[in-house]
Amino acid sequence: MRSKKIPDIVIRRLPLYLRTLARMAAEGKEITSSDQLAEQLRISSALIRKDLSYFGEFGKQGTGYQIRFLQEQLQRILKVDREWEVALVGAGNLGRALAHYKGFCNRGFRIVAVYDNDPAKIGKMLGNLKVKSASHLVEDVRARRLKMAMLAVPADHAQEVADQLVEAGIRAVLSYAPIHLTVPDGVYVQYIDPVVHLQRMTYYLGNRKHSNLKGF
Amino acid sequence: MRSKKIPDIVIRRLPLYLRTLARMAAEGKEITSSDQLAEQLRISSALIRKDLSYFGEFGKQGTGYQIRFLQEQLQRILKVDREWEVALVGAGNLGRALAHYKGFCNRGFRIVAVYDNDPAKIGKMLGNLKVKSASHLVEDVRARRLKMAMLAVPADHAQEVADQLVEAGIRAVLSYAPIHLTVPDGVYVQYIDPVVHLQRMTYYLGNRKHSNLKGF
Repeated sequence: MRSKKIPDIVIRRLPLYLRTLARMAAEGKEITSSDQLAEQLRISSALIRKDLSYFGEFGKQGTGYQIRFLQEQLQRILKVDREWEVALVGAGNLGRALAHYKGFCNRGFRIVAVYDNDPAKIGKMLGNLKVKSASHLVEDVRARRLKMAMLAVPADHAQEVADQLVEAGIRAVLSYAPIHLTVPDGVYVQYIDPVVHLQRMTYYLGNRKHSNLKGF
Repeated sequence: MRSKKIPDIVIRRLPLYLRTLARMAAEGKEITSSDQLAEQLRISSALIRKDLSYFGEFGKQGTGYQIRFLQEQLQRILKVDREWEVALVGAGNLGRALAHYKGFCNRGFRIVAVYDNDPAKIGKMLGNLKVKSASHLVEDVRARRLKMAMLAVPADHAQEVADQLVEAGIRAVLSYAPIHLTVPDGVYVQYIDPVVHLQRMTYYLGNRKHSNLKGF
């Protein structure tokens, strides 16, 4: 299976399937179908079946999917059948929100260290983590062999911190700073910038009849 | 120009072009090129020229783009040549981070009201805004004719709040709750869920040679 190159657009949808399945499971459901998933996600059931078919046969015609089984398979495919330890850089308001966010732990991720360069923040507790000096970032991350980090620092510092993270062995960065980061090949960066989403929507406000906007 | 149906994938990139231009302008640059933009954004310059060509001629062959002019054109196209007043629902850690975020105001958006249903939060200040009771949400939003909202409430409350926002006339919702919302046609929803991005990256960690991952 893995010898096929699977389009990234397919990979992007798998976390959404997994999230929807988790919600169904939490509601006590045991079986679902591509039609039900399609209705939840507002995409076509044919697309869902095609996406899943890249990875194997997960359901039987007419009987649908065992939710628990499909969850396990998607967790394995996305490699969140384990827990990834994540470094958080930036202990401002956003860093605080991330440190307290309950949605990471049962979805494969745990923030294990928080760094900041502000002496007023260093040593303070953020949830159950003590904010450490950013001067320890590289040695700490390397010693703990962390592979993932979240960046919640101002745009002006983001590239510098990203460079340190890469130096320390980080392979995947989720950046909240509204700038494009330069990283070497083999290091992945994803960006979260609320304004990008807001501006995409304002384009369509008033352009209703031309809308191609998809939910995600 | 507007009679052509422009692919959403093109619209999605315009905010990134705008963001990059703003950064160039802040650095004192006056002129750029599709090659320079491409280098910043790690996409092809041909794609950038094609995207922009949907909307007109913004540069001359060989002389590049006037940054200020292209910014103004993109702001107009994305309708952020004005300021959109935005309602924020949820005054927890994430709501607090959004209320304090400096990146909205010069990019077309301003949070003008914050709502929560927690008596311990109502009446407290979040930045320069007093948290209001969610029971006032519908009448307030309607009276102010707000069209945009951000949802920073737990997943269990998100659909209920979304229903209220729609009832109040909101046309565009940026939701941080990790569930898919059901809204009527003509209402736009965008989602921000960090775990979706993290899981997309873990898929690729260890699959290096098969990576199709694009930066955005």
